Amino acid sequence: MTTIKDIAKLANVSPSTVSRVISGNSRISLSTQNKIKKIMTELDYQPNKAARTLVTQKSKTIGIIHKNGEFTTLQNPFIIDVLSGVFLVCKINGYGTIATTATDPIDIISEVKEMIFYHSVDGFILLYSKENDEIINILEKQSIPYVVIGKPIHAQNTVSVDNDNITASAQLTQYLIELGHIDFLFIAESERFEVVKDRVKGHEDTLKNAQLIPHVVYLQMNQAVIFEYLKQLHYEHRLPTIIITSDTMINHMVLSTLYELSLHIPKDIQTATFNDSYINAFASPPQTTVDIHPQLLGETAGKAIMQLLNQEQIEQVNHIIQTDIITRTSTQRL
Amino acid sequence: MTTIKDIAKLANVSPSTVSRVISGNSRISLSTQNKIKKIMTELDYQPNKAARTLVTQKSKTIGIIHKNGEFTTLQNPFIIDVLSGVFLVCKINGYGTIATTATDPIDIISEVKEMIFYHSVDGFILLYSKENDEIINILEKQSIPYVVIGKPIHAQNTVSVDNDNITASAQLTQYLIELGHIDFLFIAESERFEVVKDRVKGHEDTLKNAQLIPHVVYLQMNQAVIFEYLKQLHYEHRLPTIIITSDTMINHMVLSTLYELSLHIPKDIQTATFNDSYINAFASPPQTTVDIHPQLLGETAGKAIMQLLNQEQIEQVNHIIQTDIITRTSTQRL
Repeated sequence: MTTIKDIAKLANVSPSTVSRVISGNSRISLSTQNKIKKIMTELDYQPNKAARTLVTQKSKTIGIIHKNGEFTTLQNPFIIDVLSGVFLVCKINGYGTIATTATDPIDIISEVKEMIFYHSVDGFILLYSKENDEIINILEKQSIPYVVIGKPIHAQNTVSVDNDNITASAQLTQYLIELGHIDFLFIAESERFEVVKDRVKGHEDTLKNAQLIPHVVYLQMNQAVIFEYLKQLHYEHRLPTIIITSDTMINHMVLSTLYELSLHIPKDIQTATFNDSYINAFASPPQTTVDIHPQLLGETAGKAIMQLLNQEQIEQVNHIIQTDIITRTSTQRL
Repeated sequence: MTTIKDIAKLANVSPSTVSRVISGNSRISLSTQNKIKKIMTELDYQPNKAARTLVTQKSKTIGIIHKNGEFTTLQNPFIIDVLSGVFLVCKINGYGTIATTATDPIDIISEVKEMIFYHSVDGFILLYSKENDEIINILEKQSIPYVVIGKPIHAQNTVSVDNDNITASAQLTQYLIELGHIDFLFIAESERFEVVKDRVKGHEDTLKNAQLIPHVVYLQMNQAVIFEYLKQLHYEHRLPTIIITSDTMINHMVLSTLYELSLHIPKDIQTATFNDSYINAFASPPQTTVDIHPQLLGETAGKAIMQLLNQEQIEQVNHIIQTDIITRTSTQRL
């Protein structure tokens, strides 16, 4: 088998020069690079990933840290779209990915510690943002490169990729006010997450500006809980004219409940939600949504972690991805 | 930095013995293993993944090959559940994963060839099974270990993990006959895939045995196509009493269409589908499904590829995972 030493001998350079060319070090002169590459081609030398890794002291792998929670979080189409963006950029750059698999916060921390201990990743992408996050503390202490998909509430200079969720929520709410809605219900999952806080804030501010009274409830992402809550409102004749949900999954459960209560959308009640996906597009009925462009979030996070790992100059610390309101049959003029 | 040579010297063994202990070779005597591990602990030696890889000539990475198709294939909850099973087993065994990202067949083949060329994976898991698959041909020619999630129609001794889709479909159809249905419509996606062929076969055989006439159509997984098809049947008063779909995604589109046509489930028409997930469980209304235990499919495929890589004796070539019918409000006695 051809080795780096064989190539070095033929090229009349040191083995470390060959290593540097394999690892993509651009400080080697172009003529030397070309000479070495020509010999590698002639000898059919395939620099295997492990050799390259050992040379560069890099695992060429990005760790992906999931938000903790129910098993359904992983099935959330938002996450899949984000991941497909991350995968694409990693693949182009010759990186693999490895993701946390635990749902319990303590177990996720162990997984991350293990990845760091075994040098099995070069950097991390966090798929969430929350205050006082122990994982962020660990990464900061050990100076491990990471990018947060979510609001930058952590150390200064934390690189983050996010939507402007306050503005997106304000725009959706304003659109619904213009349709004639005055009686709103906003159903949100746990207020621990920054994205939920911002969506609630944009909604509340817009309603208050319009002299309307916001009604926000935080419900567990659990079909029985959502069913009981809406059934009670229905029996007390206190249902609003529009239900906004903070996420596709809650919206899906709300639609199922309204179907069971024989309430027709948009005739009897209307609905709108955040995080556009095929689930909303082909729902019963198709839903008005805020498209947060999750694949673009993922691609941007992927590019940002590559910049950090290549120690390129970081021109932008907080990336903001645009949002768009997609109107479908679940909302109409009252 | 501590090296393998330092440890070998202190343990009074050869460096290759240390390497073998690091790579988990069990032929080294337990006392030697313990001696080396004790020294590694004392010197705080962390065998990094790249070093271990170079020693073992393995990348410790499994390649995952997606079925080609629309972007929505990746968002299919079935795939996510399968992957979570695969990830779990890989992680436990110290393996990472890398997945194809292309949707075009030609591009997927390029991705797979690249992974093989750069030795960036040790083996593959294919998330589909179809006849005359070029990827299978490549893997067979190059003797690369792989496991197929789907029907074993390839080379002899191909390790596969699958459900018994013929029996599962027969059981679902029999259950629906017992509810009083005699007028069935089975909507399936492309007949190129083995899983679809088997589900159609189990359905047709059961209906024929009951002296009933099967009605199977293959439709693109496209909301407009499905809408036009069902609208036409509706206007011609030719809708069946039950629509079975071969997959969650088609079911989701059928429900959206029935909602738009103001047809109530289960009052006006009934529905049932394969591949149970939260999408069916919280649909409008909750769907009767066949649970194919996708996470268990993934875990079993993960364990099988580990056995192949560890060159353990393969006791079982074709693994069959059980299926269960879950009855919900979308079906009831006629």
